[in-house]
Amino acid sequence: MQAPGRCCHWASLPSPSVWEAASMYGTAVAVFLVILVAALQGSAPTESRLPYHIPLDPEGFLELSWNISYAQEAIDFQLLVRRLKAGVLFGMSDRGKPENADLVVLWTDGDTAYFADAWSDQNGQIHLDPQQDYQLLQVQRTPEGLVLLFKRPFGTCDPKDYLIEDGTVHLVYGILEKPFQSLEAINTSGLRMGLQRVQLLKPDIPNPALPSDTYTMEIHAPNIRIPSQETTYWCHVKELPKGFPRHHIVMYEPIVTKGNEGLVHHMEVFQCPPEMDSVPYFSGPCDSEKKPDNLNYCRRVLAAWALGAKAFYYPEEAGLAFGGPGSSRYLRLEIHYHNPLVKEGQHDSSGIRLYYTPTLRRFDAGIMELGLVYTPVMAIPPQETDFVLTGYCTDSCTQLALPPSGIHIFASQLHTHLAGRKVVTMLVRDGREWEIVNQDNHYSPQFQEIRMLKKVVSVHRGDVLITSCTYNTEDRKQATVGGFGIMEEMCVNYVHYYPQTELELCKSAVDAGFLQEFFHLINRFNGGKEVCTCPQPSIPQQFASVPWNSFSRKVLQALYGFAPISMHCNKSWAVHFQGEWNLQPLPKVISSLEAPTPQCPPRQCPSPASPAIISIVGDRG
Amino acid sequence: MQAPGRCCHWASLPSPSVWEAASMYGTAVAVFLVILVAALQGSAPTESRLPYHIPLDPEGFLELSWNISYAQEAIDFQLLVRRLKAGVLFGMSDRGKPENADLVVLWTDGDTAYFADAWSDQNGQIHLDPQQDYQLLQVQRTPEGLVLLFKRPFGTCDPKDYLIEDGTVHLVYGILEKPFQSLEAINTSGLRMGLQRVQLLKPDIPNPALPSDTYTMEIHAPNIRIPSQETTYWCHVKELPKGFPRHHIVMYEPIVTKGNEGLVHHMEVFQCPPEMDSVPYFSGPCDSEKKPDNLNYCRRVLAAWALGAKAFYYPEEAGLAFGGPGSSRYLRLEIHYHNPLVKEGQHDSSGIRLYYTPTLRRFDAGIMELGLVYTPVMAIPPQETDFVLTGYCTDSCTQLALPPSGIHIFASQLHTHLAGRKVVTMLVRDGREWEIVNQDNHYSPQFQEIRMLKKVVSVHRGDVLITSCTYNTEDRKQATVGGFGIMEEMCVNYVHYYPQTELELCKSAVDAGFLQEFFHLINRFNGGKEVCTCPQPSIPQQFASVPWNSFSRKVLQALYGFAPISMHCNKSWAVHFQGEWNLQPLPKVISSLEAPTPQCPPRQCPSPASPAIISIVGDRG
Repeated sequence: MQAPGRCCHWASLPSPSVWEAASMYGTAVAVFLVILVAALQGSAPTESRLPYHIPLDPEGFLELSWNISYAQEAIDFQLLVRRLKAGVLFGMSDRGKPENADLVVLWTDGDTAYFADAWSDQNGQIHLDPQQDYQLLQVQRTPEGLVLLFKRPFGTCDPKDYLIEDGTVHLVYGILEKPFQSLEAINTSGLRMGLQRVQLLKPDIPNPALPSDTYTMEIHAPNIRIPSQETTYWCHVKELPKGFPRHHIVMYEPIVTKGNEGLVHHMEVFQCPPEMDSVPYFSGPCDSEKKPDNLNYCRRVLAAWALGAKAFYYPEEAGLAFGGPGSSRYLRLEIHYHNPLVKEGQHDSSGIRLYYTPTLRRFDAGIMELGLVYTPVMAIPPQETDFVLTGYCTDSCTQLALPPSGIHIFASQLHTHLAGRKVVTMLVRDGREWEIVNQDNHYSPQFQEIRMLKKVVSVHRGDVLITSCTYNTEDRKQATVGGFGIMEEMCVNYVHYYPQTELELCKSAVDAGFLQEFFHLINRFNGGKEVCTCPQPSIPQQFASVPWNSFSRKVLQALYGFAPISMHCNKSWAVHFQGEWNLQPLPKVISSLEAPTPQCPPRQCPSPASPAIISIVGDRG
Repeated sequence: MQAPGRCCHWASLPSPSVWEAASMYGTAVAVFLVILVAALQGSAPTESRLPYHIPLDPEGFLELSWNISYAQEAIDFQLLVRRLKAGVLFGMSDRGKPENADLVVLWTDGDTAYFADAWSDQNGQIHLDPQQDYQLLQVQRTPEGLVLLFKRPFGTCDPKDYLIEDGTVHLVYGILEKPFQSLEAINTSGLRMGLQRVQLLKPDIPNPALPSDTYTMEIHAPNIRIPSQETTYWCHVKELPKGFPRHHIVMYEPIVTKGNEGLVHHMEVFQCPPEMDSVPYFSGPCDSEKKPDNLNYCRRVLAAWALGAKAFYYPEEAGLAFGGPGSSRYLRLEIHYHNPLVKEGQHDSSGIRLYYTPTLRRFDAGIMELGLVYTPVMAIPPQETDFVLTGYCTDSCTQLALPPSGIHIFASQLHTHLAGRKVVTMLVRDGREWEIVNQDNHYSPQFQEIRMLKKVVSVHRGDVLITSCTYNTEDRKQATVGGFGIMEEMCVNYVHYYPQTELELCKSAVDAGFLQEFFHLINRFNGGKEVCTCPQPSIPQQFASVPWNSFSRKVLQALYGFAPISMHCNKSWAVHFQGEWNLQPLPKVISSLEAPTPQCPPRQCPSPASPAIISIVGDRG
């Protein structure tokens, strides 16, 4: 049997077989495939060549494994479908919605099974993609379930396709419970759909060898019962032994209790401040009334893991110091359980395993905050789809605060509150955009990982670091001001670097005096008199009284893009470096980095695209 | 001999022939082709099927003829090359520069002659276009010269190709004086290149029959000697007979003296104001000191022609009134001679032939001005590449001033001064963009024609007409304010319509009070104190003192997009219609017209593009 249309890696399939109409056995009938081996281009990736794994759905029916070829700019995906019903959808979309998604669909019309590259329109209606960019390599029945292996270039140059970029990717999946006469008959609105966030393009860097005197320490939940609610943040206190001396953490990895892979969403280990003498033991929901108050101050990140991430290795020349004088003995483990099906009675002992050594490495690693000061002067008008705020770490600050040899950033954790949609930090040298430190065009505040950079970024004295966050406030009626509250906003990049310096915070905000000129103008425009109200209303109050129209929106944006800034070029505890940090000019950027153009696959023959046919036999299950 | 690569309309060529190396006879050796007939798709268009003609170069070596198929969305071009040397370039670019142009190239390497779809990069370097969209239909030697016939869709969906749109097209041409080893060896900077502006997409409307009692009147230069300078505006006074009664002009056409087709750039016939009792006879350059002063007031357009235009027909229900009481007997003919080669001793009697009838048609045609008031409050910052100013004709004005049956616009003449690059007038009905009245994305102030609309646009009472002009001020150091001077700017669409109404002018400008708020803000931003200077500086002075930075540019743009307007809803002699015309809100537009998507030609086979080979024999001529 020949697959029509495709150009094509389905040369021939073994004996055509018959689908026994699924409807005979009801819509939920299980369907199994005979083993099919397509003509492969080279050999199929084996299990060991697919190093990354993630469960897609909370029940664990769907599991994705993948590997990355940076040379080919392509990904091999392996989708394991346990208990296949009438088919499955898998793909990607900008923010994980089933609409406007780039999909592969495995479906049956009751007689024949098909596989195709497809897309969903804004109404969720599925369409065959005229350019078939998912290349099916293998379909195999295994004891665990059906295994689909397919390949996809990062970029396909097809406007209907998702461009796989660094940073977060929102995977979407769906379960077909019954046959469909055609692909076009499928609409995602009628299906059980879900999303999973993951960093697909993991950096391709070898893990440094661990020192021979490496010890491990597990910080994990004590076999707790996961609450039967969608979202739980669990807090657990761990005390280091008395007299625990200074060590370097050189690696850490997740410990996820078997069976809970779909429930443990992210985990972080924080250290309490050194001056906190004692913290009572606690293990319970972070919003519990019984939680010790001072636990909130335990915010120094020692380790962070999120779904899909693997072990985190420090570069071999650096480690994260903990223990010893000036270091708190108290650690806080925080686990985010995501339990959308409200499963009951699930026990869990997940946590993080730290690998540490007493043989201190050459450099202490440090963490520095880049981006915006937490202040209401930086605000986002309501009803914006993509409003950008930008924070600067200026040349004056890096000149003063960095060592002569500069620093080396090897990892980064991006952070905003609920309105954040994109984050990028750009290194600017001599006025030119030089290198992207970290970029996430599909950033989600629900998915904040510490990510290793593909390439260590060295920052010299006099360099500028510009961090821009894009926000969506379509669902808001009032301006969103900067601040600590979850409905206020932040724009931060926590960069992990070595050697550690005194500079802990290099952030900016617009000069408050210039912002007052904005409020003046808006008042005059609206016929208001400029009376001196005493006391002057607060910045949030002033923002709340702005009538948001095209003029006020554009002028605020223009102001942020032009007015001088106040710099925070700070050591610990908000101590400024010596210098003049107010009314600083915005750093000038005279040239931009060119956006990389995706390598387009060669054009296909003009014959119309069509799905690949897959031989299937039904099973009465 | 088979043309390699193309998919292809060169099935086979008659006997291969030999190019006798041009270098043997010097670089200027003339080259003639044997008659070649390619396998044609259907039959080649005959002369009568190519109704439009334009000379490309001032010497008249290159002449373009074309026809338009609106059904196929394609143009047949016929390029006549008199005295062919080693080849020729022809194509289009945004504004007529030889760089970044979409080209066809006929060239020889000394042995073989080639034809290919090519493009020039920003340095003028020629490259083969991977997608060959110019389809060569015929190559023919004629007594006049070599004739190339080729076809091109309006849009090719190839990003390297020019999109042929309504309005002005900048044709570029070049002469190859010597052979080139390859296409890539050609750079336009080393060639004699030129440009010619033309409206390629002439409207496809039948000409109404002329009445039987039609008379003609020629208004033409009296066999003058064209000055030997690049640019001359010639003014010539024509007096109508005493007692000449009221007539309707129903058609006019150009009279261009044979041999001067490349020199006569445009011609207009203006009528003097009715109150001007006498105008002395004059025929000479318009900037001559001997020119009668009051000739400048003769500005009512009776007829206008520009290069490439054909006869202008009024719709059969309307005519342009002239003669009779209340109409001046004095006409002014203005001819723009463009003589870049500074030819001497060229005599000329070009002009315009009016066709008029005493049997008045049902409607008088009228001319209405849409766009911006001539006032300095509308200004363009310096160093802008595409700054947009917009003028409104509001619903209040059309409600009041149009007849209940509305008006019908059948022609339009767009007008700006030197910085104008694009002009568009949009009809907005019930808040929705309804129909484009006229649009020119490649507008040139050097090429202002009255253009028939493809389709008559009816304007109802309560409709809004929005005219936007895009300006380029990259070469300017100061703001460009609105006004009458050639270095000031205008944004006007003169629409020709019937039935004539009292409304002569429906234009707007930003409210001057709101503009003052802009100057206030900029002063405060720059630390200036708001002292009341008496007298207040003029608007141009205030614009001249604005420091142009990203903030002042964006705020001015936001102001123009938001602040209320002053309307001029005027009869003749600046008499307002009764109503409140100050501090009017900007018309709201809640939905946009979708841009038309070009019909892409079917994808070609993936074999690499290559030039078509043309058999040629050398001639020692």
